[in-house]
Amino acid sequence: MSFENIKIALAENSLATEAALEEFFKGKNSSGSLEIIISAEKYSLLGGGKRIRPFLVNEVARVLGASLEASMPFAMAVEMIHTYSLIHDDLPCMDNDDFRRGKPSNHRVYGEAYAMLAGDALLTNAFLAAASNKNVDTSYLSAAITALSDAAGDDGMIGGQVTDLEGEEKKLTFEELLRLHSLKTGKMIEVSALLGCIAAGYSAKTKEARAVCAYARNIGLAFQAIDDLLDLIGDEAIVGKTLSSDAENQKTTFLSFFDIEGVRDYAKRLTEDAISEISEIEGSELLRELALYLLERDK
Amino acid sequence: MSFENIKIALAENSLATEAALEEFFKGKNSSGSLEIIISAEKYSLLGGGKRIRPFLVNEVARVLGASLEASMPFAMAVEMIHTYSLIHDDLPCMDNDDFRRGKPSNHRVYGEAYAMLAGDALLTNAFLAAASNKNVDTSYLSAAITALSDAAGDDGMIGGQVTDLEGEEKKLTFEELLRLHSLKTGKMIEVSALLGCIAAGYSAKTKEARAVCAYARNIGLAFQAIDDLLDLIGDEAIVGKTLSSDAENQKTTFLSFFDIEGVRDYAKRLTEDAISEISEIEGSELLRELALYLLERDK
Repeated sequence: MSFENIKIALAENSLATEAALEEFFKGKNSSGSLEIIISAEKYSLLGGGKRIRPFLVNEVARVLGASLEASMPFAMAVEMIHTYSLIHDDLPCMDNDDFRRGKPSNHRVYGEAYAMLAGDALLTNAFLAAASNKNVDTSYLSAAITALSDAAGDDGMIGGQVTDLEGEEKKLTFEELLRLHSLKTGKMIEVSALLGCIAAGYSAKTKEARAVCAYARNIGLAFQAIDDLLDLIGDEAIVGKTLSSDAENQKTTFLSFFDIEGVRDYAKRLTEDAISEISEIEGSELLRELALYLLERDK
Repeated sequence: MSFENIKIALAENSLATEAALEEFFKGKNSSGSLEIIISAEKYSLLGGGKRIRPFLVNEVARVLGASLEASMPFAMAVEMIHTYSLIHDDLPCMDNDDFRRGKPSNHRVYGEAYAMLAGDALLTNAFLAAASNKNVDTSYLSAAITALSDAAGDDGMIGGQVTDLEGEEKKLTFEELLRLHSLKTGKMIEVSALLGCIAAGYSAKTKEARAVCAYARNIGLAFQAIDDLLDLIGDEAIVGKTLSSDAENQKTTFLSFFDIEGVRDYAKRLTEDAISEISEIEGSELLRELALYLLERDK
C-alpha cells in the first residue's frame, strides 16, 4: 500500500491548520515585549509534526458533513494543547529533553521561563480558539469545551503525565501501562474525534460519535505501541528525536511484555479493531487508511 | 470605618468558594497516582488568600440579579487561574519564591514537576468549571470563556508576566508600569467583574458592564500601588510573604515615581474613581466598601 491518499490528505490538513494558526496569531498583539512569547509559541506550534489530532478533528467532521470552518477552531485547540504538553514535558524539571521534532526544544531556544509561559499561553489560547468558534451552535460549544478540558486535565492528559512520573520509579503491570497511555495520549486523541463529531452536530451519545471515539482509542494505543518499537529499532535521523531513551530510563513499554513481532501483532490487532469500528460510517476511507498508515510508519 | 460588612461578606464568600471548589474536586478521580496532583492543586487553591476575584464575580452577579449558582462556576474559574499563575510564578525558573501566603510555595512541598503540572491542571480545570456552568444560558458561555481566556492569555496575564520578566532588566517608564499592571493583574480583575455581569445576563457592551469593569480596573491598579507600599513598609508577619524584595531586585514600582504619601494619594484617587464609576448601580454598597477596604488594608 502506497498510502498516497492519506499522505496527501495529511499534508493538505497540515497546511490548512498551520495557515489557520498563523491567522489566529495575527489577531494577537505581538508588539514590544510580547513579541518573544508569540515567537516562542509559534516556534513549537508551527514546527512540523504529523498533525494527527487536528486531522482527526477535521476529517471526522468532514465525513459527518461539517464544514472545515466549523471544525478548524477545534482542530487548532487540540494542536495547541498537544504542543503545550510537549513544551512542558521537555523542560528540565520533567523529561529534560534537548530535542523535539528534530530541532532544539523550546527551552533550549527561549529559556525555561519563556518556555513555561509559552506552554501556559498555548493552553490558554486553545480555549480561546475553541470558544471563538463562530460556526457551530453555541449550545454545542460548552459540550466541546467541557470535553476538551476534561481530556486535557487531571482525569486525562495531565493525569497521564503524573502516572508517567510515578511510573519512572516502578515497573508497571500491563493494565497500568494501558491506563497510562489511555490518559497521557489516548484521551486527547479520542477527544479530537469527538470534537469532529460535535462540529458536525453529533453529540457524544450518538452511535457515530461512539464509533469514531472507539476508532480513535484503538489507533491511539496502536500509535503508542509503534512508538515503543521505533524507540528501540527506529532510525534517529528519521524519527527526529533521541532514541533508546526508554531502555536507558528502564521505562515500562509494550516491549516489557512482548517481543518485537509481538508488539507489531498487538498494534495490528488494534488497527483492525479501529477499522472495524468505523466500517458502517460512509465516506470514512481516509480514516481507515490513516489507521493503516500509522501502523506502517517509520517515524 | 470598621469595614465590618465587607469583612463578613469576604469571609462568607471565601467559605462558599472553598466549599464549591472542594465539591468540584470530589467529582475528580483522585485514586492511586492521581492523588498527588489533586493534593498539589488543592494545597495552593485552598490555602487562604483574600479571594478578591471570586468575590468580585459573585458580588457583581448578585448586585445585577443573578443567583450564586450562576456565578460560582465563573468565580471558581478565576480563582483557579489566579492560583495557577502564583504556582508557576513561584517556580525556580521564574521568581524562585519559597513562600506564598505564609506557607511554603507549591514546588517546595511537591517538587518542581508536580508544581508545574498542578498549575497546568488548575488552568485546565478553570475552563472545565466555567464550561460546566449549567445555570447560565449556553449562548453566554462562549462569551464568558472567550473573555476569560483572553484575560488570562498573552494579551492579558501571561503578557504581563512576560513584560515583567523583560522589565527586570530595565527601568520602566510610568506608562510602562501601568501597562504591566494592567496586563499582569488588571485584566483578570476586570474579567472577574465582567463574568459577574455575564452570569447575570449583561453583555460586555451594557452600561452596567462598562461601569463595573471600569470600577475593577481602578481598584486593581490601586491594589498594586498598595502592594508596592506594603512591600516597603508592611509587616512581614502580617503580609505573609518575604518583603523588601522589590528594592533588592531593583524593580520599578510606584515608589520609583512617588514617595510613600504620593503612592497613598494615587491609590486614593483611583479608589474614588472606582467608587464613582458604580455610583449609579443600585445595591453596590459592598463593592464601594471593598474598594475602601483594599485601600486601607495592611496585608
